[in-house]
Amino acid sequence: MSELDQGVLAGDPRAIARAATLVENRADGWQQLMRKLFPHTGRALVVGITGAPGSGKSTLVDQVIRHVREEGKSVGVIAVDPSSPFTGGAILGDRIRMAQHHEDKGVFIRSMATRGTLGGLAAAALDLVLLFDASGRDVVLVETVGVGQDEVDIARVAGVTAVVVVPGMGDDVQAIKAGILEIADVLVINKADHPGAEKLERELHAATATPILQTVATEGRGVAELLQALRDKYRADRSARHWEQRLIEMYRDRLAGRLDPGAVAAAAEQVAQRKRDPYSIIEEWLH
Amino acid sequence: MSELDQGVLAGDPRAIARAATLVENRADGWQQLMRKLFPHTGRALVVGITGAPGSGKSTLVDQVIRHVREEGKSVGVIAVDPSSPFTGGAILGDRIRMAQHHEDKGVFIRSMATRGTLGGLAAAALDLVLLFDASGRDVVLVETVGVGQDEVDIARVAGVTAVVVVPGMGDDVQAIKAGILEIADVLVINKADHPGAEKLERELHAATATPILQTVATEGRGVAELLQALRDKYRADRSARHWEQRLIEMYRDRLAGRLDPGAVAAAAEQVAQRKRDPYSIIEEWLH
Repeated sequence: MSELDQGVLAGDPRAIARAATLVENRADGWQQLMRKLFPHTGRALVVGITGAPGSGKSTLVDQVIRHVREEGKSVGVIAVDPSSPFTGGAILGDRIRMAQHHEDKGVFIRSMATRGTLGGLAAAALDLVLLFDASGRDVVLVETVGVGQDEVDIARVAGVTAVVVVPGMGDDVQAIKAGILEIADVLVINKADHPGAEKLERELHAATATPILQTVATEGRGVAELLQALRDKYRADRSARHWEQRLIEMYRDRLAGRLDPGAVAAAAEQVAQRKRDPYSIIEEWLH
Repeated sequence: MSELDQGVLAGDPRAIARAATLVENRADGWQQLMRKLFPHTGRALVVGITGAPGSGKSTLVDQVIRHVREEGKSVGVIAVDPSSPFTGGAILGDRIRMAQHHEDKGVFIRSMATRGTLGGLAAAALDLVLLFDASGRDVVLVETVGVGQDEVDIARVAGVTAVVVVPGMGDDVQAIKAGILEIADVLVINKADHPGAEKLERELHAATATPILQTVATEGRGVAELLQALRDKYRADRSARHWEQRLIEMYRDRLAGRLDPGAVAAAAEQVAQRKRDPYSIIEEWLH
């Protein structure tokens, strides 16, 4: 264990990978490890990037990685794909990227898939952010797909969040969601060379006061401006309020994780059949 | 207390109102009351109706009320407005409606506004649904505004959920959100006499397999069909799995409610300054 935390602090990719697995699986000793690492956190620029499938978000993330690397800085990427219980998509994307950045020790990529209802995806993502931060990564990118509570929770973890949208009729309906607009610190219209980009920008301007940027990720266009906008909007000191929320969530997750799934299922059955009421069951669980 | 539960079971509006206040405020005895009422629940048709401000959702809800009343059935309405911390909008809407249905004991309307982060809005909404159900309401409508985790949680409470959208360019971007599409059992294009209704229906058809209905709430057009669609899609027996999720949430909410906000704030401050780590704090709270 003490070897592992030393490895992480030294930035050793193997140690980071082993530590990430330990933490993600909530395996024995994960909390001790995180306790040791925590004092070394708070230095990384933590950026959330979210957008629907097909928005070119992954290509954009790759361009951001490239740009950060050109600045001589190191990157950690956490790719969260809550939609895929089998992590198929995320792992495939990983492999392709891993191949691209294979020789580069300055880039570390990790995928996360949906966890059970009792575990908290956002909680685990936060732990990985802290792990990467402690390992000395200058920039930590948290990439999420689609919309939902996971994205909102993960946005809270990041110091700044970019939401990627694309022009095109179908996307107006499918990809742009107010739930996601609300968490955006920066809005990115990717594939800005496609028809409808200007119309989309007008519509977004009407809908929100959030800064809007246009990018063409495949050509690297607008990526430098995006990084600048992210740095401008970065809230390094969201700290105390941020942690208030996080502590409550961590506490809730830990407690829910203590429930025995079998007992929950049995109780639910009784409640559904009106053989027992939920209120007395909760009371029982609390004592 | 025993008077109160008898009053609720007898359907007395004053008793229902008093009980709702007791439950919403988590005042002394609320759980005892709910325990007594719970065996009498499970009979109402619980319908979630959600949509952005301006979608005409409230007018549609009024038409549904009217229709249900014409069938000789009673209605309870729970209007949730998480966006307004001061309940201004919801209460105003209430008063207008209350005036409309004032003489009608078959209609009971109740507003809920955002609760603190430690309390659970969805948990309280579920309790009110059960309360109305126990009071003998044939139909319980849960009306929510906008999108977000609250809507998703409340949709889980309902046996069927309608999402109201409207045609018009701005609304494509603002009002229609995949997060909300995912919870829809029935999609309603209201203001279907406005330009763009057909285009919107085409776009929605491309985006989802959910049944789509057109309504003009101001004229009562399509309301009978909507009620029929809601009944067709009703899952009376989502029960056991539904309760599994609910029990976990109730447990989590109750536990988080036990935390002392002052202690949480103080701990958050220390964590933000890296004077302490969050993991040992959670451990402390657990013991």
